Amino acid sequence: MRNLCMTLAYDGTNYHGFQTQPAGKTVQDELEASILALTGDKPKIIASGRTDSGVHAYAQVFNFHTSSLIPADRWPLALNARLPQDIVVTRSWEVPLEFNSRHAAKRKTYRYTINANRYPDVFQRHMQFHHPAPQLNIEAMREGLQQLVGTYDFTSFASRYSQKTNHVRTLLEARIEVDTTTCRPGTADQGFIHIFLTGTGFLQHMVRIITGTLLQVGEGKRAPEDMKTILLACDRAAAGPTAVGKGLALWNVDYGELLPE
Amino acid sequence: MRNLCMTLAYDGTNYHGFQTQPAGKTVQDELEASILALTGDKPKIIASGRTDSGVHAYAQVFNFHTSSLIPADRWPLALNARLPQDIVVTRSWEVPLEFNSRHAAKRKTYRYTINANRYPDVFQRHMQFHHPAPQLNIEAMREGLQQLVGTYDFTSFASRYSQKTNHVRTLLEARIEVDTTTCRPGTADQGFIHIFLTGTGFLQHMVRIITGTLLQVGEGKRAPEDMKTILLACDRAAAGPTAVGKGLALWNVDYGELLPE
Repeated sequence: MRNLCMTLAYDGTNYHGFQTQPAGKTVQDELEASILALTGDKPKIIASGRTDSGVHAYAQVFNFHTSSLIPADRWPLALNARLPQDIVVTRSWEVPLEFNSRHAAKRKTYRYTINANRYPDVFQRHMQFHHPAPQLNIEAMREGLQQLVGTYDFTSFASRYSQKTNHVRTLLEARIEVDTTTCRPGTADQGFIHIFLTGTGFLQHMVRIITGTLLQVGEGKRAPEDMKTILLACDRAAAGPTAVGKGLALWNVDYGELLPE
Repeated sequence: MRNLCMTLAYDGTNYHGFQTQPAGKTVQDELEASILALTGDKPKIIASGRTDSGVHAYAQVFNFHTSSLIPADRWPLALNARLPQDIVVTRSWEVPLEFNSRHAAKRKTYRYTINANRYPDVFQRHMQFHHPAPQLNIEAMREGLQQLVGTYDFTSFASRYSQKTNHVRTLLEARIEVDTTTCRPGTADQGFIHIFLTGTGFLQHMVRIITGTLLQVGEGKRAPEDMKTILLACDRAAAGPTAVGKGLALWNVDYGELLPE
């Protein structure tokens, strides 16, 4: 038996999230079907975590045990030939038998993208939340976001349906990058706003609720320091709305020295 | 009566090209339907030119006459609310009654994109031709492309089904830009190769046949100077294959001083 670990990019538009569930096609279903077609065995896939319906991944990580003798570096091409075009395996390693993609993950980074130009970008429409108006105060958003860095109970920024008993998480890094190359000169266009959040773990809808609340800060409906008040309230009702799933992508999962860069 | 001119971006993936035709949905059909819904009149749309099935546009230009009194700057939002999400009107002007988007176009620029990394980009898959191997000699491609700049009979690089009687066109500028930020370090990835061609006019499939032939130069199957020999042969059979439509986009149409930048 061998343990294979792979990175995976997917356009989540047409999937009911990563993890297999009773209703609807998922990324995991497609992965299992392609591995079954290649090896004759249905694998038990362990991923770094699930992603919601419509959410994307630049580098999801998963592993599974197999008796197949196909060398690790041949797997991406072999699986990609069997996967639909919106799912692509991009790397592959053989890892120690006990390696588990979920438990071994040290840090995860998510990216949320807001298109703050007047018109939607037709080629990125499935990967952005379009917010053409009112103008956003990006410095206020940056200031608000910094209030959340640290170790806190993130209940205010978690789905009411979260099944975790412990909502304490550590947000290690939070930053906003603005791509203004997409602005048309002479307009009120603000470009593409990318919110990057890195943490040891995330609660259900956490990035999306943080984003939805931060947009209220950007619109001037809340002050930057309100982010801390909301956080300390430990009450989902204190925060803003959940931003739409399509703007979110799992950007990176860091395993330290367990996996090569 | 007024004459309105607009720029338009579209993801051509789900359309049988720009121009209305007997079989299949086109971008023009959608535009006409949305203008009809807004004004009650079916417009006669004149575009800078047609694009083929699956080909995209960053800035197609079209105009039509209307008796509607809606101010020019209100049209993009009004039409976008009625258009499908893969078509977006991005600018609008009132122009002199005699302005014609096709006849007034001075220069057009097309972009063809090749993904020369090992794996496809899942988010750009509808907008790139994936060419993972063999390695491309990009300098040879640049040299080959320069052979075509000037005024020539481009019959070798036109569809056999071209209905134009005169195949003389002027290629004003041709360049290759390589985006290596998408390469994974330590691999044979070559990045995204963008071929930009600017000319006074283009023949059917011209950019795609030039690209298909240039790829043979990049693969070492032909020498850069063969591009000139092929050009002078005035024979479609002398050139290489037609590159797939999805890698192509109408990038810009220049009207000089007739339309503001």
